[in-house]
Amino acid sequence: MAETAPWITYRPELKVLDCTIRDGGLINNHQFSEELVRAVYDACVAAGIDYMEVGYKASPRLHKRSDFGLWKFCDEDVLNRLFSDHDADKTGLKLSVMADAGKCDWREQIVPRQESKLDMIRVAFYAHQVSEAVEMIEHAHKLGYETCANLMAISTITELEIDTVLAEIAKTHADVMVIVDSFGNLYREQVDRLYAKYSGAMAGTGKDIGMHAHNNLQLAFANTIEAIILGANRVDATMGGLGRGAGNCHMELLLGFLRNPKFRLRPVIALLQDHIEPLKKTVEWGPFVPYNITGQLNLHPRAAIQFRAGKEKDDYVKFYDQVVADI
Amino acid sequence: MAETAPWITYRPELKVLDCTIRDGGLINNHQFSEELVRAVYDACVAAGIDYMEVGYKASPRLHKRSDFGLWKFCDEDVLNRLFSDHDADKTGLKLSVMADAGKCDWREQIVPRQESKLDMIRVAFYAHQVSEAVEMIEHAHKLGYETCANLMAISTITELEIDTVLAEIAKTHADVMVIVDSFGNLYREQVDRLYAKYSGAMAGTGKDIGMHAHNNLQLAFANTIEAIILGANRVDATMGGLGRGAGNCHMELLLGFLRNPKFRLRPVIALLQDHIEPLKKTVEWGPFVPYNITGQLNLHPRAAIQFRAGKEKDDYVKFYDQVVADI
Repeated sequence: MAETAPWITYRPELKVLDCTIRDGGLINNHQFSEELVRAVYDACVAAGIDYMEVGYKASPRLHKRSDFGLWKFCDEDVLNRLFSDHDADKTGLKLSVMADAGKCDWREQIVPRQESKLDMIRVAFYAHQVSEAVEMIEHAHKLGYETCANLMAISTITELEIDTVLAEIAKTHADVMVIVDSFGNLYREQVDRLYAKYSGAMAGTGKDIGMHAHNNLQLAFANTIEAIILGANRVDATMGGLGRGAGNCHMELLLGFLRNPKFRLRPVIALLQDHIEPLKKTVEWGPFVPYNITGQLNLHPRAAIQFRAGKEKDDYVKFYDQVVADI
Repeated sequence: MAETAPWITYRPELKVLDCTIRDGGLINNHQFSEELVRAVYDACVAAGIDYMEVGYKASPRLHKRSDFGLWKFCDEDVLNRLFSDHDADKTGLKLSVMADAGKCDWREQIVPRQESKLDMIRVAFYAHQVSEAVEMIEHAHKLGYETCANLMAISTITELEIDTVLAEIAKTHADVMVIVDSFGNLYREQVDRLYAKYSGAMAGTGKDIGMHAHNNLQLAFANTIEAIILGANRVDATMGGLGRGAGNCHMELLLGFLRNPKFRLRPVIALLQDHIEPLKKTVEWGPFVPYNITGQLNLHPRAAIQFRAGKEKDDYVKFYDQVVADI
């Protein structure tokens, strides 16, 4: 073919964020071993991945430490210990954490960037929390961090609410505005509309658009590709799709799609084999039928997660009947 | 939202074909019990599905009967027995078989439509077999059948070869020209280009465009949606994605997407629970890492299928190294 096919070229500015430990932590109360977290870190470096999100900065005031693993809080001393050799200039890998509006003591928990291993703070929030999110973004920015705004559960709020949030975020120093499909409910035409809305609202601000997809309908990878085609330069994925419920966009699929030669697939394959597949003995994730159902119906995966944890976990018809009766 | 969102409306002319038994038969040499085949049939009727493909019309001259189950040959007496009550006018479900160019004694095996339970013959062929495919289509058409042309392995042939085949098929009585992603290698932009090519070549002939996707890259459902958005009115899916290697587009996802109220999801969910999930004890299908790799590299899934059947089936790195060394 004489013409250039877009799927065999690449955009150097496209950056990949691994959120295996952060999103995966929602399955097991963030109780990953330090060995596993370090293995993911090393795989990210070897694979040429741009960011690794290591967990949450959850408030120890609001969350009992004994109920959770280290990656719920991401205390600076833990990061300093495990990533003592961290050098983003050398490896190209930056570290990030997620800070949830309403769940983080951000004034205390986020320290100046030069005192931290972290390079980026991603602020996650619901529409009604946008004012706190703006404060959090500006605070982190002043402390020297790159920042992202992650508006969650967009498939359940109105266009007007989304527009209002986007207008507020546009005025901040956030580097990225992320399209977050919390319920794994979006089809391609909806991704298109949201991308147009998000990029329109951010026009002229220099902000990138990001994509964080869930795999309830086996569309996490497809919707991520779609956002990339439209111009999204920040995309999230996890190793083996590890993540709450149906999981996320699979890193091994994403890297196989991207054409930037800096990305290397083999370290990811090795990590899957040595560290991610073995997790399936103790935790479950993936687009099982109950997640298909909640995704299709635009429901939080909570009901499906609870059902899969119960004795009747394979009684799909019962779950279907229950959910349909409840809506 | 005031405007009409395309994903909440429907095209009445869009028809769904279930090929669970036909494509699934490639996993187990077509050795499904009559009970299972009948359960799929009953689920298709209850779900409002338009076509069910029950297997192949493979030549008993070229294939030893004792090596395969009934659904490799789909003898008329078998169909008459299992579907004795078949009545497409009453149920809306039509039956089809696939006939492979080069592998079917089509002059003998295909009987006049009024003597058969079958309503449609789908002719599968590689580009170099187009002349026989045209003869087969015309033969089946003369016998009264609806016909489809399924050009396989399109990701490995040239644009010129595809164009030549399409020009030949355009002249036939085939009702449908199907885009077949045999290797599960297509990304969305490639589906777009192929759809434009196929529909352009069929313009003015009244033929529908179909989509048959494989799930190597977890894109079977996404690519099927894409084809639908573009205008494809014939789409293939299988229950639970059952099919060779990575499997196919999942029927339970597809019906959840389609908005035609004639489609009902619950019978499919029940079939999954009672008949398809139990198959996982004896056969394997789904987008496992080796299939991701062959899909990305545009290779036949054969190598991955063999690898997954071997002792080292979970040594993904070994498979990756082997495949990369071989290309």
